[in-house]
Amino acid sequence: MYQVNISQTVNELKELLDEERVSQNPTVLEQHSKDESYHTPSLPDVVVFPKKKEEVAAIMKLANQYEIPVVPFGIGSSLEGHVIPYEGGITIDFTLMNEILEIRENDLLVKVQPGVTRTQLNKALKQYGLFFPVDPGADATLGGMAATGASGTTSVKYGTMRDQVQDLEVVLADGTIIHTGSLAVKSSSGYHLTGLFVGSEGTLGCFTELTLKVYGIPEYMMAARAVFTTVEDAVNAVVAIRQTGIPVARVEFVDAHSIRAVNHFEQTDYPEKPTLFFEFHGNEAGLKEDVKFTREILEAFQCQEFIHETDNAKRNQLWKARHHMAYAFIHTYRNRKFMSTDVAVPISELAGAIGFGTNVLQDSGIPGGIVGHVGDGNFHICIMIDVNDPDDIARANKLNQEIVTYALSRGGTCTGEHGVGIGKKKYQEKEHGAALAVMRKIKEALDPKGILNPKKIF
Amino acid sequence: MYQVNISQTVNELKELLDEERVSQNPTVLEQHSKDESYHTPSLPDVVVFPKKKEEVAAIMKLANQYEIPVVPFGIGSSLEGHVIPYEGGITIDFTLMNEILEIRENDLLVKVQPGVTRTQLNKALKQYGLFFPVDPGADATLGGMAATGASGTTSVKYGTMRDQVQDLEVVLADGTIIHTGSLAVKSSSGYHLTGLFVGSEGTLGCFTELTLKVYGIPEYMMAARAVFTTVEDAVNAVVAIRQTGIPVARVEFVDAHSIRAVNHFEQTDYPEKPTLFFEFHGNEAGLKEDVKFTREILEAFQCQEFIHETDNAKRNQLWKARHHMAYAFIHTYRNRKFMSTDVAVPISELAGAIGFGTNVLQDSGIPGGIVGHVGDGNFHICIMIDVNDPDDIARANKLNQEIVTYALSRGGTCTGEHGVGIGKKKYQEKEHGAALAVMRKIKEALDPKGILNPKKIF
Repeated sequence: MYQVNISQTVNELKELLDEERVSQNPTVLEQHSKDESYHTPSLPDVVVFPKKKEEVAAIMKLANQYEIPVVPFGIGSSLEGHVIPYEGGITIDFTLMNEILEIRENDLLVKVQPGVTRTQLNKALKQYGLFFPVDPGADATLGGMAATGASGTTSVKYGTMRDQVQDLEVVLADGTIIHTGSLAVKSSSGYHLTGLFVGSEGTLGCFTELTLKVYGIPEYMMAARAVFTTVEDAVNAVVAIRQTGIPVARVEFVDAHSIRAVNHFEQTDYPEKPTLFFEFHGNEAGLKEDVKFTREILEAFQCQEFIHETDNAKRNQLWKARHHMAYAFIHTYRNRKFMSTDVAVPISELAGAIGFGTNVLQDSGIPGGIVGHVGDGNFHICIMIDVNDPDDIARANKLNQEIVTYALSRGGTCTGEHGVGIGKKKYQEKEHGAALAVMRKIKEALDPKGILNPKKIF
Repeated sequence: MYQVNISQTVNELKELLDEERVSQNPTVLEQHSKDESYHTPSLPDVVVFPKKKEEVAAIMKLANQYEIPVVPFGIGSSLEGHVIPYEGGITIDFTLMNEILEIRENDLLVKVQPGVTRTQLNKALKQYGLFFPVDPGADATLGGMAATGASGTTSVKYGTMRDQVQDLEVVLADGTIIHTGSLAVKSSSGYHLTGLFVGSEGTLGCFTELTLKVYGIPEYMMAARAVFTTVEDAVNAVVAIRQTGIPVARVEFVDAHSIRAVNHFEQTDYPEKPTLFFEFHGNEAGLKEDVKFTREILEAFQCQEFIHETDNAKRNQLWKARHHMAYAFIHTYRNRKFMSTDVAVPISELAGAIGFGTNVLQDSGIPGGIVGHVGDGNFHICIMIDVNDPDDIARANKLNQEIVTYALSRGGTCTGEHGVGIGKKKYQEKEHGAALAVMRKIKEALDPKGILNPKKIF
């Protein structure tokens, strides 16, 4: 723990920024004590709202001098306690750095400040016929998405945040400002710092500017839903589709439990069976051929029902059961909190892993269901837990432990997209072995005083 | 320089490996003193040929103990002196570690040893209907391609080595063996070490096993060639095509000088004008639509001739001028050595950069031409220099200096795909600024004695 007079620090921060952008208001502290996870909140000592990189650099220099912990904060939508300041200190809220700085439409690049949210960006891109593909569900800030290495339903085609970040402006622990990349889409010059900083969860620096790849809105989109008898058939159909190279833009798995929850909540009558939701992007003739070929493959895996739509409204209607799955659980169990596992496994192990997950979920007695970004081998066991019941917490932890152990034994990872934060620290040694020491050495080399988001990842 | 009795080290190495896999034969030393670049050769003290990771770890432990430089060596096809042992020491040749360990066809992954070459891998993959997309021209080893972050003509669709490497087994400077990733295609667990080690040019560790992504051979391929009046029209047509999102698999630019060299060498009669070579991968109906749309866009940029082919032999024939460009120069100027610049710029700056490059080339008086992976903003000024003429070397360096300065001033990079090695060290400070110190800190943290490929990158 740091030993400094916090009121003196607050006074110095007020000299660096305007007085109203340095807050110790209890409500503001409380807002920055938590994220969307079930992890125990913890208050920061002070929250600051910088407007430019020079201010962030000055804050970091001060923090470094006094060895005060610093937690960068986007919108607080992280799922593993990433932004909870367990050692107090300064939380840097990037809300006021929310400008879209430049849309380089010919380069398919945008420069944004870290507080810009993905829907804000997509709204601005639309008039250029462009879009940003990473969609983690929440309307997260792009700085936060880069910090946690976020991804989502479109990663099977477009990749994760790591694939989209072209350059980061980073304020390091000592206040130095660096750029990790350039505007060239391809480079072999020096170490790939962009790849290292994306997903570093605020432990290596604060991002003050991001250059991101964007894409032309596809000429034509098609959505489809396919219903299966067994989980194995559904997953194996996805394996077969991937091998053909059909460029699926999204492919989501939803289990029978989840469909049932949606039917109950929405008064719908979807078949309560393992279901795949597809989206295809491309040109009209190509997609028609892709969908025809997909259907043939699905039929070989005993697909019982296959519906596809091109019209925007109908596409959304078709995907409704997927979109509303989390809401259905949350609204059905209002006194419980949503929690989700996040393993990813090699695709060949996915059917087995989901089968194992189904049993583990059933054994736990906790209400929930399974959804998966099956094209990536990543799936979530979504459970509704009573955070005030220690037994329920213990059951949830046991469930997570079991599915992580299973995934690691099959060459997988404890977290496909939610990150480590505080919740998955305990699996790092087992997953990374000797590589964890390499990560620690990098952390120590770049943040020797350990002030950046302490207690996270390690 | 290290202070150790090399004959004692050689004896110890012979105890670790068989005697015949530790060589000080002058021919062997000479073979490992150079790569394919114009950089001055330098002999290693000894070359070792390990067969397994445990041997590599033992070699590294020994080298670390005595502080002897170690250079990992694939096939010697690097272009910036990466494998030249300027401080002597031990060169580790990975030729004997050339086994394809596992083809996980359902996962679209392969595990290979570092000495496997890309054509060896593609031959093995073919029977599974799979292929590995990165094609840097040379039949390089996959270990070398990962170490230099190689790419090539297909990167516009499939990405570079960095995008294909799923996991690396790395022997660190102290002999520790780590894995940088897992078999899950998506992970947010810990720092992204894979991204850091790919392109680290042997300065952070020796790769002893690689897990790589592979792809289904496309159902249908189409090649096309388009001839333009001006460089601007050709490049701007590519910008427009990228914006539409047409999934081009390759798009290469060849300038009029290069076409002329090919015509001269091959006795062909290609129009001696700026030319684009395309390749499209997909399904038949989709490609026909893509090619039709591409043609419409090209016509808007005064394309004078557009020919496309689907038959394999005819596709190769159509691309001949691109494939034979380097040979044409090399065989026309037999007493000179091929050298190539490698800048990449944001696509919006590409027409200007190629125009600038054309002028610089003309002013230099050196014979040569320009080719480019234009979809990536990466292009090469290929020149034929007399390495025995200091004036010619000076002219070549001036040309490179000018094009790099231009590229950096436009937000580009000094090297799109060849890497830094010895040749581009002088541009690192200018390109990376304060980020170079971060790279150095990482190097010092992981290789405190500086034994791994010294004098490279930094």
